[in-house]
Parts: sequence; structure tokens; C-alpha cells
Amino acid sequence: MWELTDRAKRYQEDLLAFMDEHVYPAEPVYWAEMAASGDPHHYPSVVEELKTEAKKRGLWNLFHPHPEWGPGLTNLEYAPLAEIMGRSLHIAPEATNCNAPDTGNMEVLTLFGTEEHKEKWLKPLLAGEIASSFAMTEPAVGSSDASNIELRMERDGDEYVLNGRKWWTSNALHKNCRVLIVMGKTDPDAPRHRRQSMMVVPLDTPGITVLRSLPLFGYQDREGHGELLFENVRVPATALLAGEGDGFMIGQARLGPGRIHHCMRSIGAAERALDLMIDRAQARVTFGEPLANRANIQDWIAEARVEIEMARLLTLKTAYLMDTVGNRAARVEIAAIKVAVPQMALKVIDRAIQVHGAGGLSNDFPLADMYAQQRTLRFADGPDEVHKRTLAHMELRRRDPQWGRTA
Amino acid sequence: MWELTDRAKRYQEDLLAFMDEHVYPAEPVYWAEMAASGDPHHYPSVVEELKTEAKKRGLWNLFHPHPEWGPGLTNLEYAPLAEIMGRSLHIAPEATNCNAPDTGNMEVLTLFGTEEHKEKWLKPLLAGEIASSFAMTEPAVGSSDASNIELRMERDGDEYVLNGRKWWTSNALHKNCRVLIVMGKTDPDAPRHRRQSMMVVPLDTPGITVLRSLPLFGYQDREGHGELLFENVRVPATALLAGEGDGFMIGQARLGPGRIHHCMRSIGAAERALDLMIDRAQARVTFGEPLANRANIQDWIAEARVEIEMARLLTLKTAYLMDTVGNRAARVEIAAIKVAVPQMALKVIDRAIQVHGAGGLSNDFPLADMYAQQRTLRFADGPDEVHKRTLAHMELRRRDPQWGRTA
Amino acid sequence: MWELTDRAKRYQEDLLAFMDEHVYPAEPVYWAEMAASGDPHHYPSVVEELKTEAKKRGLWNLFHPHPEWGPGLTNLEYAPLAEIMGRSLHIAPEATNCNAPDTGNMEVLTLFGTEEHKEKWLKPLLAGEIASSFAMTEPAVGSSDASNIELRMERDGDEYVLNGRKWWTSNALHKNCRVLIVMGKTDPDAPRHRRQSMMVVPLDTPGITVLRSLPLFGYQDREGHGELLFENVRVPATALLAGEGDGFMIGQARLGPGRIHHCMRSIGAAERALDLMIDRAQARVTFGEPLANRANIQDWIAEARVEIEMARLLTLKTAYLMDTVGNRAARVEIAAIKVAVPQMALKVIDRAIQVHGAGGLSNDFPLADMYAQQRTLRFADGPDEVHKRTLAHMELRRRDPQWGRTA
Amino acid sequence: MWELTDRAKRYQEDLLAFMDEHVYPAEPVYWAEMAASGDPHHYPSVVEELKTEAKKRGLWNLFHPHPEWGPGLTNLEYAPLAEIMGRSLHIAPEATNCNAPDTGNMEVLTLFGTEEHKEKWLKPLLAGEIASSFAMTEPAVGSSDASNIELRMERDGDEYVLNGRKWWTSNALHKNCRVLIVMGKTDPDAPRHRRQSMMVVPLDTPGITVLRSLPLFGYQDREGHGELLFENVRVPATALLAGEGDGFMIGQARLGPGRIHHCMRSIGAAERALDLMIDRAQARVTFGEPLANRANIQDWIAEARVEIEMARLLTLKTAYLMDTVGNRAARVEIAAIKVAVPQMALKVIDRAIQVHGAGGLSNDFPLADMYAQQRTLRFADGPDEVHKRTLAHMELRRRDPQWGRTA
Repeated sequence: MWELTDRAKRYQEDLLAFMDEHVYPAEPVYWAEMAASGDPHHYPSVVEELKTEAKKRGLWNLFHPHPEWGPGLTNLEYAPLAEIMGRSLHIAPEATNCNAPDTGNMEVLTLFGTEEHKEKWLKPLLAGEIASSFAMTEPAVGSSDASNIELRMERDGDEYVLNGRKWWTSNALHKNCRVLIVMGKTDPDAPRHRRQSMMVVPLDTPGITVLRSLPLFGYQDREGHGELLFENVRVPATALLAGEGDGFMIGQARLGPGRIHHCMRSIGAAERALDLMIDRAQARVTFGEPLANRANIQDWIAEARVEIEMARLLTLKTAYLMDTVGNRAARVEIAAIKVAVPQMALKVIDRAIQVHGAGGLSNDFPLADMYAQQRTLRFADGPDEVHKRTLAHMELRRRDPQWGRTA
Repeated sequence: MWELTDRAKRYQEDLLAFMDEHVYPAEPVYWAEMAASGDPHHYPSVVEELKTEAKKRGLWNLFHPHPEWGPGLTNLEYAPLAEIMGRSLHIAPEATNCNAPDTGNMEVLTLFGTEEHKEKWLKPLLAGEIASSFAMTEPAVGSSDASNIELRMERDGDEYVLNGRKWWTSNALHKNCRVLIVMGKTDPDAPRHRRQSMMVVPLDTPGITVLRSLPLFGYQDREGHGELLFENVRVPATALLAGEGDGFMIGQARLGPGRIHHCMRSIGAAERALDLMIDRAQARVTFGEPLANRANIQDWIAEARVEIEMARLLTLKTAYLMDTVGNRAARVEIAAIKVAVPQMALKVIDRAIQVHGAGGLSNDFPLADMYAQQRTLRFADGPDEVHKRTLAHMELRRRDPQWGRTA
Repeated sequence: MWELTDRAKRYQEDLLAFMDEHVYPAEPVYWAEMAASGDPHHYPSVVEELKTEAKKRGLWNLFHPHPEWGPGLTNLEYAPLAEIMGRSLHIAPEATNCNAPDTGNMEVLTLFGTEEHKEKWLKPLLAGEIASSFAMTEPAVGSSDASNIELRMERDGDEYVLNGRKWWTSNALHKNCRVLIVMGKTDPDAPRHRRQSMMVVPLDTPGITVLRSLPLFGYQDREGHGELLFENVRVPATALLAGEGDGFMIGQARLGPGRIHHCMRSIGAAERALDLMIDRAQARVTFGEPLANRANIQDWIAEARVEIEMARLLTLKTAYLMDTVGNRAARVEIAAIKVAVPQMALKVIDRAIQVHGAGGLSNDFPLADMYAQQRTLRFADGPDEVHKRTLAHMELRRRDPQWGRTA
Repeated sequence: MWELTDRAKRYQEDLLAFMDEHVYPAEPVYWAEMAASGDPHHYPSVVEELKTEAKKRGLWNLFHPHPEWGPGLTNLEYAPLAEIMGRSLHIAPEATNCNAPDTGNMEVLTLFGTEEHKEKWLKPLLAGEIASSFAMTEPAVGSSDASNIELRMERDGDEYVLNGRKWWTSNALHKNCRVLIVMGKTDPDAPRHRRQSMMVVPLDTPGITVLRSLPLFGYQDREGHGELLFENVRVPATALLAGEGDGFMIGQARLGPGRIHHCMRSIGAAERALDLMIDRAQARVTFGEPLANRANIQDWIAEARVEIEMARLLTLKTAYLMDTVGNRAARVEIAAIKVAVPQMALKVIDRAIQVHGAGGLSNDFPLADMYAQQRTLRFADGPDEVHKRTLAHMELRRRDPQWGRTA
């Protein structure tokens, strides 16, 4: 009980060795290659080398729950692996083909794709040959309420015609990105949760323009957060995932794993920030003694340890519930970690920055970038406030099953 | 995995039934009896009735890890039971003979007591016939540093002579209290952790004066937090637990379970506060709608749920580690829950008070009393700051094993 | 600018001398007298002696803005004096006849009382011969929304007949309490803010029963927080303050000064807690050095100084605005201090408690009692959330004057 | 009292008009010009146009306390003007020639410069013809302890030879930057506070290399935060400001105004963030109503208003003290605002971001950039922890004047 399976332990050891032997040493190479390219969306060759190495070591598609496509780990087995990857967020997940949003897209294609989708898109994704993107959020509407989604998908004979605008379409500027999964509205008059559909759309389909990549704080992420314009984009009716009106249902199925993977990686990021905080506190001397000797810095270290551990346990329990009772039954816990984990990570990283002095805000340390990454997670897949609302409604109904039913 | 054993589930069901059928209904009776008595240290007859009922139901000495003295539950099995008891803190732990500091004293007597100690004190304690107290903290010194303890225990022939002053000697004013376990200094010149010893001292030994009971906030707790004067108190040499100089070692052995039991009960208190907060928010209407409809109150409810669950999981993990690797190896986790859990409970209770309006500060609801109880736990067995210091030192050595070795 | 007037400085010096020479020395006498009496509502003779001394020194009715009844200080002049009184909250305000709710009642009687009211009640109040109470809050309704008030006042010939229940009627158990100002409903069918009236009601009027005094945390305050039952209480029509339906208007006029006086005193309480925290931190040694040398305790001290100073300045600005543009125009600032000041004081006091160890929760130090007093101020004259709502509405209309007009 | 002078009010009106008529309209132009240039250190022509306009309107050198060089406003008069400039931080301070670090450098040159320094550097700085930089912080040492500064300044005949490395040399990459004020060590054996000196060093002096500009979060600020290498940089002995060993003294004189100007501008930034938060909350609809209707968002708005106002008042009081008792006597207050104001601004901005959704992290709104700017202020002129230490030491000595004297 509370212990990893032997299999998970073995993967953990292998992954730790891969990190020490390959990923951490690759970090300076990666950043040097990025800087030399002068292109924020450059695809560094070192990533490709790491992918080859990871595949060789069997550290590939670890995320995928279906045994025909990977080792078929449970969420609980995968969690500590994703955490380790989160320590080097720009490299390790991609090197092991466990990167968002590809992971979620692969799951969706596995569950809802046609044979053609699987052959054409899923296989190269699983092989790490291409990348993909997920076009959901829209600039004009509060997308945390999915029923607001407005991109129009109109049937025209054997085709659908897509018109609208998306943003925060992450990965769209990845050099390997070839395909989008797009959420849009097929039937404005259907019941609220049957209006939307999802489709598989090649990125080079005529009518799609990548207008720009949105920066996060000042960072222009390599994979890009695209703003995309859809103007009379024509796709065959076979582009549809599952059936018309199933968009909301697929979205729900997709979100659970996506959210927990984010949280697992955030815990790894927090652990790395804590390590950096400790090392700097031990090395830096002011007023005659190392910062590590000061009780306020010690309090920060202690609080970080406690808060990381609590967040980790909640995430592991959520993984366990997803494995045993299913994503839907675990939705309270999924909402809970979505609220708790990024805020915890931000607090730890911010204090690590403070211990580093102004250097902590520069790129001489990974902390400011980590802060920016974690801050976005308070919006990704819905802002904190929407998840708290969900949690509160569940609690209110726990005490009064009729609460809010008529409101 | 992450699941209770069948045995633990059965005890949980039985205990929940006992709470619903007996403990909650007894609460108003208890308070009425206390008020009628005019004596804050009155022992209400309803508690004795509940003890009889609990014993009949086999809900007795659940805390005791040794199977010859109780069901022999593991810490992990006991945790959810202690949590349930914590929902009615003044009644349920005593009704099931799982009350601090009797529990810790019973464990110490089991592990370190002589046959005479066991016959004379342990048996009636296990039978719930007497109560006991633990005399450790002293008013004159910062007792969180145990080596500061000054009560003198001088050998004089076959006896020891005790002189000194203790306070926060909880339970000393309980009508059934008969015996103290006293920490004192036998050898001021021994190495730092071998100076103290522990002794079993009948409360009615000549020379012991209970000077007063210390209030907490305005509350004069029924069991009392005694200030005790020891003036030439003579006890036989057989009063010694284990050997001379073993006081610190016994204290360490005692603290682990004591701390985790407190934390388990605190989680139960927080759960009850959350229930009260929700119920009040649903019932109270201002400016045309129930408080429960407001997004700020919903945020409080959601945050309470998340924070309770994280604290619970950390406590359960700690219990598991104590069961599997032992109290000493689990000392980081024990320090962690000691810091995290009472603060979490205080936050939840304080917000529940806020939802209740000024009534929440009165005794019409149990919340203000719960707040006072939880606030003391930020000192009991060491203030937060000492536990954070322990945690920080462990972390600093995790990164640099030599850190602080020469300081 | 930002400086006290000479007059205010002179009063400040005189009051500080009175505190040092009389009030602080009286504190142990006061508590000994209270303990000896065995009656939580005992009126200690030392208070009467202090009143005589304060009157002799001209430190009397300093709060009263009308020069015919006192020195006629402005709010800005009075603020630092009230702050000083707040350092000894149970004694200094009463000793100088500046105690709530008498102060608010005296203002209301000055502004709205008939000649008879002034002769019979205002004069002895100003002379400190009697005490008074303000009966507003009701147990059955969310009283932060004043239009909820339900105590019925029915006209019957030349009389009104009062029926209902009040609680948190502070001062009602004061040995000198003789008169109540009562808020009730005269016309349920009038427009929302014209339904209530206020009346002057002698406490010994037949039909009034003081059911009990509500404790705060465990404290039974000397003045009492009464729950009062009104059963067919008959008062003459001349009991009315201003006219029928003016209750809400009088309440508004009363609240401004009441709230700011509370805040001024809270700042004094926080200053005293900070002094106690520093003194204890310097005196207490653990692990080889005084707590005051530790960076975490130093952070607490620094934060307390900054937060006290910010809260004080906001309170002084509010006082200045009340003096210059009036209570109504200053209502945003009054709401702001009502939210900010008690929370600041609670944080400082809580940390001071933490530095004191468990003793900080007992009555050996004034801190736990101070905590209880400040905690009630997050409800007195409306809970924080109602004041925040007011503030938010003002801000929303600052950006969009039409906001919420139709909602 | 608490009111602006007429003169200050007039400047305020003029500056507000300039903001509305010129600065805000220039913002999109500015960013477009920056984007078009492809150079993060481009100097946009619109800034030069704004400078011309500001000079014409008499809104020039408002910061300078010496009447021969500007209007000679007091700190208290300047404060609300600097706050207004802070609303458009990249443009308004520079447009009015009130930009850090030029302001501090101009003050230092005014107070300590030779006639030659004034003629050659001060005059063109006051005319806005050149920019300047301040080289203080070093990468290798904890520079918050100024005695750590290591850049070597060795006398060699009529010259000094400078060797060392600086970073966070803000403004060094400004296209107009011509001169540095450099802090270095002239005498390693002098008493602790007499070791350092300051010198005026043209940026194009042989031996100075600008290695790079440090980014903040991902932002490469236009003015740049330079890392500079000094290799055998030779300057005449007349480069010295005041005398040898006066570096620490000049630094102290410089820091007071520098810190308060930062804080004033931070308050303006917070005000702008609050406006953006309100406007977005009113415009954005989810689940059927605008965010502004939700009580949690209303709480954020209310808390922002209260916290901004408290921070502003503390800043104004500090300005007043600097004007009346001097920078040195006001050092507690200067430390206090340095701790309080940026943290307040960060909290407000972070919540404003949250209300904006992921867009708040992009450059479609100024919020993420504002966050980065404010975050650096928790280090600029010393990290929070150093200022808290100063505050705590003052408080500890307030209660015990001997505290720490021998330590």
C-alpha cells in the first residue's frame, strides 16, 4: 500500500538514469542551440537525439494507458514518471513522447478516431514523427464555459466548412506540427451539450492562417501558442471524431488525463525549484553567514517540502481514483489538484527566485521560465475559479442533494 | 491500495453508528450537565454512560497498537477512527478510552513500565477507571528544547526527591486523575540527551500542589491544564521508567503517536467545521439570497475541501510510514503534519465562524471552542517553528550531507 | 501637515501619563478584583477610582465632537487618543468615559434626543454615572442587512408596544446599565429604509428580560453581550428618537464614528501586542539564542510594524475625511478600515501569541483576550464581507456609473 | 492637512491631461514601433516626440528637488505625479525626464559632482539629450550587503584603473546611454564603510564591454539590464565623486529618493491594473453573468482598493518625512514602503491577470509586463529580506536600546 509497483519502480530508475545521463546534460546544449538559431520556434537537433535514446531505452509513450501503444501504465504508475519529466519541462516530456497536447490528442484518436485517422495521424504521433495541436479556446468568448465555443462547422454535402478564430492553440508553431483537433459548433440549436463537435484537421488545409504566437510573460515558447484564423476551411465529413454533437463528451474524456499530467509535471517543477533554492541558500553569504542558516529561509524550505508532499499525495490519489473508478467519478479530485498544484508550485518557485536575487528573474536560472509555465496552468483547461465552483457545488449537494437544482 | 482494510472499515462503520446514536445526542446533555454543575472540572455522568456503551460495542482502546491491550490496529487503521472522534473532541475520545494524554501514557507504561506500574496504573487506565497526566513543560524555560527541562530529581538512598514546577499538565484536574508521568533532570552533568529521566508519580504524593488550571482563550477545559508545584516530593527508585537518563528517549518514542493522533482528530474537527459552514451558508439569507450562492463563500468551501483532503493524505501517509518503517524514520512526516494540520483546521474553522456571524464566537455553536482547541496544537509537543526547523535541517542535509555538522 | 495639532499633542501627553501612572498599574488590581468577586459582570471599584482621576485630569468625554459636552476634538485629534486607550481595552476607554456603546449612544442622544432624553439619560451618561446599551442585532435574521430587523414596535394610543428578541446587546449586563436604545420595525409596509425606528427604553421597563450574556470564545465579558426578550414592553410615544421611520437614518449616522473608534483602539491593541512580542522574543532563549535573533521572528516584527503603520494612516485619513467632508462622504474609507484594521490586529496578536508559547493562550498575558476582542470586530457593525461588497460596488461604479443600477 | 498644495494640484492636472492626450494614445504606436524595429533596445521616435511635448508643457524634471534644475517640488508634491507616470511605466517617466536611474544619477551629480561633471554630464541629462546608468550590483557577491562590492579601483598616478564585473546595470543598453556611475573598492583595508568609492565613467571608455542584457522573465527591456566587464579601464582621478571612501555615503544618499520614486510608480501601476481588472470583470460573461457580479471578484476589487490606499498613504508619509526630517531619519519608512508596495502591486496585478484569462499573460494587455517590472522591485535596491531586517533591528532597539550592540 502507498508503494509503487515493481514495474513502476523499474521505469522510475530507468527514467532517472536517462535524466542524469542525457536530459540534464542536454539542457545547456538545447538553450545554446535555441539562442544560435535566432528563431524562438526552432526545433533543436538535441531533442531528436534524446528521442532516439529514449526510444532505445524503452522510455517511450509511457503516458499511453492502452497496452497496444505503449507499456500500458496506470495513471498511478505514470504519475511519478511524469513528475520526473516535469523537472525539465521543455525537453524531457518531448524526448519521451509524453508531451502535451500530443498526449491528449493521441488518447482522443485512440478512443474516437477512425481507422484512417489512426493510420494517418495516430501512428506517426506515437512514433514521434509529427506533432499535433488542440484548437479549443477562442479569444472572443469566456471559453471556460465550453458551451460558449463559437467556431462554426457547417455541413455542405460531404464536407464541413469551418469559420472562426482560435487562440492558445499550443504546439501550432512546432516545426513538426501537422494536424489539429478542432472543437467547433455544428448545431447551434441542439441541446446545450450537444452543439459542439470535434474534427481532425490537417494544419496545411487551405483557409487556416497561423496569425501569430502568443507570448507568456515575455517568453515566446518554442512550440508556440497560436492564434489561428479559419476562413472557409473545408474538411471531409470523415474528419469528424465520434459523431456530430459529441464534442463536449470527447472534451470531458480528454480533460481528466490532461489535467493530471500537468499537475504531475508541476510537482516535478516544484521539486527542482526547491533543490535550486536550497543549493543557492547554502552557497550565498550575506552579513557573514549563508542564507541557509537564516530561520526565515529555513521556514520557506520547510513549507515547500510540506506543501509539495501534500500536493503530490492528492495527485497520486486522483490518479488512483481515475484508475479504479474512472475519470468521471474522480472529477472532484481532478478539480482539486487543478486548483491546488499550480498555486503550490508558483509559491515554491517564487520563493526560490527570491533566494536567487535578481538573477533568479533572468535566464541564468530556469526559475523565471518555470514561473511563467506554471502561471499559465492556472488557466489551462479552465481557470481556478471554475474548478472551485465545481468543488463547491459538489460540497453543497453533499449536505443538501437538492441544492441549486431549481436555481 | 489507498483503501482501508476490511477490519478498519468495520470499525469505522461501528464508530459512525456510535457517534450518530450516542455521541452527538449526548452533546447537549453534556453541556447542560457542565453548566448545571457550576464547576468547569465537573465530570459529567453522561461520559461514564458513553464509556459503558462504547465498551459494549467493542469501541475501546482502539488506539493501542499492542493486540493484548486492544484490537491492535495499525496507525493507518486507527487514523480514520481518530478522525471521527475528533468531530466531538470533548466527548468521543474519552468515551472510547482514546483520549490524550492517557493514550500516550498507556503506551509508555506498556513499553517501559515495570510489572508493578502495569498492575497498578496501566490496567485501570486501560479499563477507563482512572485518568493520568503527563508533566513535561515548565514555565521558566523554552520547553520546546527538551534539554532545557529543569525539574530536579535527586537520588536519596532508595528514593528520588523531586523539586520544580510544571505547567500545561493536561488532565491534572480531571476528577479521575490519579497518576502523573513526570519528566525531570536526574544528572545535570550527563551528555545533553542523557540528563533527563521519566518517573511514575501518584498525583496524591505529598509535596505536589496543583496551583491552578490554565485557561485557553477564555475556556477553562474540563480536564484542566495544571500548573503543579513539586516540593520535596519523594518517590521510590522503582518509580523510574526504563533507566536513569532515558527520559529523552522515552519522550521521543511517545511523541510520534501523540502527534499523529492530534492531527487525525484535527482533521475530524475541520470536517465538522466545514459541515457547519455549508449548512449555515445554505440557511442564511442576506440581500435576497442564501450565502451559499455567493462565489466568495463557495471559494471558501472549495478551498476547505481541498486543504482538508491534502492534510488527511499526508497524515495517512505518515501513519503508514510509522507502521512500516517506524516512528523514527517517519519523523520528517510527523513534523510535517504537526505544522500543516492544525493551521489548516484553524483556517477552516475561522471561515466557518465568519459565515456564522457573531454567533459563531459564542457557545451556541462549537466553533469558537474548536478554534481554541486547535490553536493550542500549534504549541502542543513543540511550536510550529521547531518542527519547521527540523524539516529544513533534513532538507539542507538532503542536498549537502555535511550541512551544519560543524556549526 | 500629517502632524497633530498642539491641542491634540497636549491631550496625548496627558493621556500617556495617565496610562503610565494609573491605568497600567491598575490592570493587575482590576483582574484580581474580578477574580475575587467570582462574578464575571462585577464592576471593579478600581474603575471608579480611575474615572475620578481621569475627570480630574480633564481626560473625559474626549470622544464627543460637540464642544458643549467635552473638549470638542475632531476625529483626527481624537484618533491617537483612542489608539492609546485601545492598549488597555477593558479599562482605559471606560475610565475616560469613551467606551462603546455609550459613546455612540451619547452622540445619538445629542443629535436626536428630546430635552427629556437629554436631561434624564444624556447628562448622567456624560457624567459617567450610568451606562447604556444599543439593541440592534437579532438572532433570527442576518442583521448585516438592516432592513431585516424584525422587533415589532406597534403604536397603541400614546404608547408603543415592543415585542421581539435582540442579542449582542453589549453593555446590557454592566452593573450601571440603565437605558437601551432599541431599533425596531414601526411600519412593515413603508419603503425599505423607512420601516425602522429607534427608541429610548429604560432597561427596567416591565417586559424586558435579559436572558443571558453571550460569551466570546470562552470569555464572559464584564459588560456582557446580552440576549434580551421584549414581551409587550410599553413605552410612551416620546421614547421615539427623531421621527417614525428614521431608524435607518440614525443608524447610519451612528455607525461612522462607532466604526472608526473601534479601529483606532484596535491599532493600539496591535501596538501593545507588538511590544509584547518583541519583549518576549528578546527574553526567551531556545537552542542557544534569543528568539529575537532569528530571521523568521524578525520578519514578523518588521511586517507588524509596516502593517500597523499602514492601517493607522488609513484610519487617520478616514478621520480627516469625516471631519472635512462628513461621515457619509467618507463611507468608502470607513468600510475600508473596518475590513483592514481588525484583520491586521488579529495577525499581529496571533504572531505575538506564537512567540509566547502556550502561555500566550492563557490569561498570564493579555494576548488571547485581545484576540477574542479583535475577532468580534470582524462582525461588529457588519461582517467584513458586507463592507467589501460596499467597496466593490463603489469601485465598479467608478468605472461604469450605470453598473448594477438595473440589476 | 492631507491635501496637496495648489502647485502640486496644478501639476497633477497638467500631467493627467498629458497622459490622456499624449501618453496613452502613444502606447500602441510605441509597441508597434518596437515590434517593427526587431531590436529590443530600439529607441522609438514617439518617445522623443513626447519629450518635446512634455518639455513644452513644463512637465520636465519634476523629480528634481533643487529649484535651479526643475520646479523644485518636494517629495510629497512629486509623489502623486510619479504615481501617474507609473501607469505607463515604459513611456511616461522617460517622456518627462523622470526616469530611473537617470533621476538618481542626476541627484548624485548635483550633490557630489565637480563642475566638469555637471557641465559634461548633468546638463545633457537634465536636457534629456543623453541617458546614464548606475553600475553597482555584481554577479559574484550578495550585493545587498554593499560592503561585499569587489570591483577594484586602483590608483595609478593621476588615474584609477578599474577591473571587475557588474550586472543589472540598467539603462546601459539605452541608445542614448553615455555615462556610468560606478561603485567600486578603492581601499580594501579601510574601515568597512570607507572602502568603496563612486566614479563617473563614460560608457565608451576603453576596456568596458557590455557583455549582454539580462532578461526579466522573458522580457528584454528596452533600456537593458547590462552585464558589464571592466578590464583595465583607466579614468582620470577627477572621475571621483566626493572623495575616496565616500561610495557608501553617496549610495545611502542616493537610495532614499530612488526607492520612494519606485514605490510611487508602483502604486500607479497597481491603480492601472485595478482599472483593467474592473473593466474586464464588467465586460466578460460566463455562466450567464458578468464576472463583476460574482462575490469573489468583488472581494478582489475591494481588497485591491484598500491595499492600494494603505500603501499610498505610507508612501506619502515617507515622502513627507524625507521632506521634513531628511532621508536618513526616514530610513525606517523607506524600508517599510520598499517591502510593502511592490508586494501589494504584485498581488493586484496577479489578480487582474486572473480575471483576464490566459490573455492576461500575453502582450495583448500590459499586465504580464507590469508583473515582471514589479517583481524586480522586490530586489532593486535590496531584497525584501534586507529591508525587513533593518526594520526589525530598529524595533528591537526601540524596546531595548542595547539590543544587538555586542552581537
